[in-house]
Parts: sequence; C-alpha cells; structure tokens
Amino acid sequence: MNHPAPPSALRRELPEALLAELKAVFVDRLSTSMAMREHHGRDESSYDPMLPDAVVFAHTSEEVAAAVRLCNQYRFPIIAYGTGTSLEGHILALQGGLSIDLSQMNQIVAVNPEDLTVTVQAGVTRKQLNTEIKDTGLFFPIDPGADASIGGMAATRASGTNAVRYGTMRENVLSLTVVTAEGKIIRTGTRAKKSSAGYDLTRLFVGSEGTLGIITEVTLKIYPQPEAISAAVCSFNDIASAVNTVIQTIQMGVPVARVEFVDENGVRAFNKHDKLTLPEKPLLLFEFHGSEYGVKEQAELVQQIADEHQAIGFEWATRPEDRSRLWQARHNAYFALLQLRPGCRAISTDCCVPISRLAECLLETKADCEREKIIHGIVGHVGDGNFHVQMLVDPNDPEDIARAEGVNERMVHRAIAMDGTCTGEHGIGLHKIDFLIHETGEDAVDMMRSIKHALDPNNIFNPGKIFRW
Amino acid sequence: MNHPAPPSALRRELPEALLAELKAVFVDRLSTSMAMREHHGRDESSYDPMLPDAVVFAHTSEEVAAAVRLCNQYRFPIIAYGTGTSLEGHILALQGGLSIDLSQMNQIVAVNPEDLTVTVQAGVTRKQLNTEIKDTGLFFPIDPGADASIGGMAATRASGTNAVRYGTMRENVLSLTVVTAEGKIIRTGTRAKKSSAGYDLTRLFVGSEGTLGIITEVTLKIYPQPEAISAAVCSFNDIASAVNTVIQTIQMGVPVARVEFVDENGVRAFNKHDKLTLPEKPLLLFEFHGSEYGVKEQAELVQQIADEHQAIGFEWATRPEDRSRLWQARHNAYFALLQLRPGCRAISTDCCVPISRLAECLLETKADCEREKIIHGIVGHVGDGNFHVQMLVDPNDPEDIARAEGVNERMVHRAIAMDGTCTGEHGIGLHKIDFLIHETGEDAVDMMRSIKHALDPNNIFNPGKIFRW
Repeated sequence: MNHPAPPSALRRELPEALLAELKAVFVDRLSTSMAMREHHGRDESSYDPMLPDAVVFAHTSEEVAAAVRLCNQYRFPIIAYGTGTSLEGHILALQGGLSIDLSQMNQIVAVNPEDLTVTVQAGVTRKQLNTEIKDTGLFFPIDPGADASIGGMAATRASGTNAVRYGTMRENVLSLTVVTAEGKIIRTGTRAKKSSAGYDLTRLFVGSEGTLGIITEVTLKIYPQPEAISAAVCSFNDIASAVNTVIQTIQMGVPVARVEFVDENGVRAFNKHDKLTLPEKPLLLFEFHGSEYGVKEQAELVQQIADEHQAIGFEWATRPEDRSRLWQARHNAYFALLQLRPGCRAISTDCCVPISRLAECLLETKADCEREKIIHGIVGHVGDGNFHVQMLVDPNDPEDIARAEGVNERMVHRAIAMDGTCTGEHGIGLHKIDFLIHETGEDAVDMMRSIKHALDPNNIFNPGKIFRW
Repeated sequence: MNHPAPPSALRRELPEALLAELKAVFVDRLSTSMAMREHHGRDESSYDPMLPDAVVFAHTSEEVAAAVRLCNQYRFPIIAYGTGTSLEGHILALQGGLSIDLSQMNQIVAVNPEDLTVTVQAGVTRKQLNTEIKDTGLFFPIDPGADASIGGMAATRASGTNAVRYGTMRENVLSLTVVTAEGKIIRTGTRAKKSSAGYDLTRLFVGSEGTLGIITEVTLKIYPQPEAISAAVCSFNDIASAVNTVIQTIQMGVPVARVEFVDENGVRAFNKHDKLTLPEKPLLLFEFHGSEYGVKEQAELVQQIADEHQAIGFEWATRPEDRSRLWQARHNAYFALLQLRPGCRAISTDCCVPISRLAECLLETKADCEREKIIHGIVGHVGDGNFHVQMLVDPNDPEDIARAEGVNERMVHRAIAMDGTCTGEHGIGLHKIDFLIHETGEDAVDMMRSIKHALDPNNIFNPGKIFRW
C-alpha cells in the first residue's frame, strides 16, 4: 500500500563476517531464503513488507544473547519476531536487520498454581498457555483476539476483550527476562505480587516494542477459572444508547468481564461471515464472571441499565457453545469486515478515551467516515473507552487511502483533545510516530529517546519504531 | 542511631549565588532556619537526621521547574518533601541540598466522577483526598497507614491494607506531571484507562523515589464506594494456621478488600495502646467490599476456611464505628509497638514473597527474632505476601542494632531465595541499596543507573538513594 516510503537510505547492509558468526551459532536454524525473509517481513498492518536480511530461530535466552552481542558489535539491527500479528508495522525491517524468531521458545518454564503465577518462554502463545494450564483450574485472561505470543503481547502492552475486568499486560506481567544491548541477561522483577525495589524495569519493557531489548521469558499472573460464566447480547436503536449503557455500567462499578460494542456494519459482516442472524443494529456483547449468584446479580443490573436505554432482544447465552459462537464471531471481526469489500485492505484505528467521552468520540468519528464515504465497521472494548474503526480501502487508490488516513488523524486529534490516547492496545510501531508526539509532547518523547540512547547506544533494537532516532 | 555514617565527603555546599536566585523566586517561602532544616531532614526511619541547606515551599509546577533549573545549573541536590513519613531514609539530605516542600501544593485539580478519575497536586494527602471527594460516592483506596501525600506515595510505589483488592500506586496512577532535570514540565500519560503509546514513563516515575524528577501532579483511579462493607476478626492458636487461612482464601480467588495479620506481640501492643480486649494470639482482620449478598458470600467462604484452621472467636464488625476502631488499632501499630519498649527506636522490615512461601518466611523470621532475643511485633498485608517485623532496639546499643540488622538481612536473603522482594512497599531509600543489588543483580541495577544518568546527568535529584552513583 502506498504509505510513506521506508527511508531506504537508512538501510544497513548485513556484513558477511556477521553472517558467518551467526551461522556458527545457529547452524541450520539460520536462513536467508527469500521465502523466510518475506514471511518475517510482513505483519497484519497495511504496510507493504520490509524484509529482514536473515532469520534465526532461537531456543534459549543464551542464544538470543549471543546473537545480540554479535549484532551490537556490527551495529546491525535486530527485530524480535513472535507470531507476526502486529497491526502497526512493528516487525517490518525498516533498516534491514536480523529477525530473531522466538516461536520455538515455546516452553512453559514453571506453573505455580499455589501463587497464581506462571513463567513462560516468550514464544508461547496465549492459547497454548491456556491449554497447558487448563487442568490447574486457572487461566490467563488477556485476549487480544489474535493467538499472539506472550512475548509479543508484553512488547506491545496488549490487552483486548477481558481487560475491563483483568487489566492489560501492564497489570499482569510480574517479571521479564530480557537480553540487553550488551548481550546480558537480566530479570526485571520477582514473583512477589508487589514490590518497591527500584525502578520498574518490568513496566519499562512492557510496551517498549522491541526497542530496548529482547524479552525471552515472561512471568504472568493467572486467575482461578470463575465458578460461573454467563454471556448476553442485546441490540440498540442507536449507537448512543449502546454506549451510554456501557458508561453507566462502568460508573456503577459492575465488574463485567467483557463488554464489546459492534456497530451495525460490523453486525452485518458477522451475520454474513459467521452465519448468524443478529439484528443489524448497534450491538453489545457482555460476559460476566463470578459466583453463581454474583453473575446473576451483575447480569440483572446490566439488563436493567440496558432496558433504560431501550435495549432490544436481550438474550442470554449460558451454554458454553453459544458463548463460544458469539465470541468467535467477535474475534473474527477483522476478517469478517474485510469481506465487506473484496480486494480491499484494512486501516484499523485504536484510540481510547475517558469513558464519559466515548459516545461523543465514537459518533463524531462515525459521522466522519460516512461523510468521507468510507466503507467501515466499528468494534470496541468499550468498557475501557477503547474502540477500533476498521476502514476498508483500495490499496491501489491513493485518494481512498488518503481519505481514510484523514479520518484516522482527525479521530486521534479528537481523542487526544478528550484527554485520551492515540493507541489503547496496538502500539505506536511505524504508523503512529507523529501521533505520539502530538499526544505526549516533544519533551516526553525526548525523555523516551534519552532512555533508548542510554540502553541501546548503537540503535540495534528495532530501529525506527515508536520515535525517530 | 549508629547506622553507617553518611559519606559527608560527598556533601555539596550551597552556593551563595544559588541561594540569592532562589530567594528571588520564593521570597518568604524560602527558609534556611535550623528548625525548618531539621524538620525537613528527618523521617520515620531509624536514621539520624541529615539536614538540607535550605527549604522552599512551592505552589506551582512552574515554581518547582524554576528551582530545578537553578539547582541543575549549580549542580546542587534537590529533595522533594511531602509529609516526611518515609521509613527508609528517602528524604535525608545525604549530600546536603534544597528541600522542595510540596505540602502547600494541596489543591484537587479536577474530579471526574463520570470517568472514575481525579487529578491532584502532589501535596494532597490521601485523607484530604477522600474527604474532598466523599460526596461523589467515590473513594481512593490506597492506604499505607500514614496520612502520606499522594506525590510521596507515587514516588515510593506505596500500597498498604487495601492493595490485595485494589492494587498499589503502580496500578492506580494514570498519569503524572513531572519536572525534569532541565526544568521542563511533562505529562507522562492521559486519563485513558489503558494505552500502548510509547514507553511507560508513568510507571518509570512511580517508585523512582525522587531520583528522576519531581512529581507535581498525579491523576489517579478512584472507585465507587462499595454498596456493602463488613469486617471480621478471628484469632488462631498458631501463626501457621492464620497464614494458611489467608493463602487458601487468596488461592480460591475470594476478592477480599483487606486481610491483615498481627502476631501475638502486636495484639498485646494493640490491647494496651487502644484499650482493646483481643485474645493475645495471632490475629487476622478481614474486610469485605461488594453488594450486600456478595459481601455475605465472601465472608461465609472465609469463615469456613478459617474454621478449617481452628479459628477462635470469629467476630463480625458490621457497624462502621466497630470497624473504625479495629482499623484504627491496625494503623496505630507502629506507635503501639514502640511502646512495648520505652526509649527504643524501631527497625521495620518489609519483605514480600509469593504467597505459598509466606508461612515459611514469616515463621523462620520470627524464630530468628526469638533466638536473638529481639523485642518485636509482626503485622502484615498478608493477602499480598507482604509483612513487617517491627524490631525495637536501643538506639545507643550498637550490639542491639547489629542483632536486629542481622535478622533483617537474613530475612531479606530468605525472601529473595523464595523469589520475593526486599521491599513490598517502603522502597529502597538509603537502607536497602545492597539488598537491591542482591535481589536484581548488578546488571539490572546498572540498567537503572544508566536511566538515571540519562535523565539526570548532574545527579541533582535525591542523590545517593536506590543505588550509588
């Protein structure tokens, strides 16, 4: 797609000597084949691929450290690769580089059910984790939709549908094992639930998008599977009623586990893609976790609030298979929406605002889409004030793209003016570098840059992401 | 007390020219009187006072920025002062310096009940905040005991009794206004509930103990006052039974709002100080927040677990005045325990371990105290695996102090071996610099130091705390 061209002048060449030394460490787990480079040079963003020069598959923190030491010596870029599900161009090799694929670091290192913690290698995916710990009666709630790697989720400070109840990666990572630019392996915390021991290195690396070091292991909080779960859907005549139902639910302190919004375009896409028969109106999906009685109590309260906003067809899904079908539809949103316009690509927005401003932000943005005649759908983790407009554009039509980027830019400025953020969960990557400056100001970005310079003086870690060097 | 002497060789002199320039800014809000310097050179740690050279009372972020710019120009230390309730020597002027007293920056800047957020100046205390927002039906839960300033609580990553349910300052600060070493005023975040916008500067400053900049404003999460609150106390024949009751409660996912442990020495001190008649045995205090039914459900479950551990005299305190009396006693623990040994000073420990190791850590530490014949009491935020041994020592008896420090050191090493931390909530300050190295390793401390050097190249912000320059 015709995004601002990568500054190829910055591209660094892979030195032959470095390649030889890397080969000595990784042997047949190093590849420079075009197929492998292409696979590691694309993500789910709307950018065209930017290929790394080589790919290695690491098995241990020590191997990662060896690769980092070599690359640091040759000042050659390194990009950590998990599952490639970034939406913002995080893994694109803007300056070339070595892609360190962590997907084979997929061991559960330790499960401590008695402490509600688990330690995993960075390449473990969230679904794998939940499968492997299922028998303990515990689960890991963070669910960004994609079956992302835990390391990647930590690096982008991911969240998703359950965050309204359980928090994001920020709240659920207890400690990280990280390889530094000097190739040292450090641990940023312990398994203690809280600590005041020095700077919060854990939180510094959570959300650092691979620019400060490589995350190789992650210790997470896990939670008892709730005694009872129930889900519900209901429709509304207009978006404002749906959103105001959510706002009131949150303000009353109801501990909903999930509350997702889908606009009428999104519902139409779901119906088509997942063969559902939902009314093609703004929709809310709820999930409640707790004791049998607690779940009933929460649900009754929410139904009452929804009724006050003229909810239509409040319907319960208590059977696991009905719940799964609904949540599967929600998780397929990206692909379902893509089918609204064959041959298109999607530009996904990600702003998050204080909840009292949500209806306003969402409605103004939708009106802008309609004014610009952009085919779109809106879904949102609305309990957190976070929503995504998926705009479908013709990748070969620069005007179409420019119109969509215009909507995105106006939405981001709107969200920031409401004291919100340009990204609730997707990260900055390549796409939002200027939005970050607009949001935090040059001085705060300068502070981030100072930290980067201090920890990665040769700018080897994922250069060109979050901010310009 | 005869702690390692402050390295007075490091003491920097207050230049006359700097003093004159500060006077021009602060006029009669600058003092160099001995009384004022003494008040700002002591905290609640066991260290002897170390006096700043001058004290200014700031009213705005801009005034703080002016003072910082001047001190940075003269490379003169700055120590932020809130209420002086540090337990680890945070505010002691190890190298001399300017104390910036923020207590007059005590305005509530904005209350946004519809978003469950509040923004305050750094000098607002937690009790003041709760008084001022009471009418909104919302409250700020973090409660470290002392009526500390919100800025100080952020700087030490404070927590306390409610953290088991509501989290610590780490989870409850949304954004900070911070003055940097260059005297710039930055905002580290927004009021959005979650964000993936760049490095987590907010979490970097939370717990930075005044070493990276001066926090002047804080945006916090606040919560709906629970529909129902109830409290309960029960006693146990031995510590293990009490602690195992807590472990099981947490493992079952019961969302207790508070669960505090007091050993028999602590109970004896409470009875004496607060004229209570609690059985002089290990005690648990519980508090439950929720709906009427939810609170009842939680409490029944906990009572059942306690009964399985032969709890004695499970007693309910549903009337607010009875609850207040009990929690007041808990909050007076520090002073009540001091009275067990007139003329003594207290050394307070603060380790935090994964909850499955809590009984073992606590019992071994208590046995060590008894072996060393140290008069002590133990209280703990046991739901988080955090406990405090308050050891009463004769400030004029070096052997007594050495015995207590020996117990502390062995306890810290024990906690770290259990994958815990040397400090759950008090911070590193002066006292735990070597413990921090033991806990995280030299390389992680080096990373912290690199960040410090990058953001405060002249080492003006609270020098000598957390780590050595």
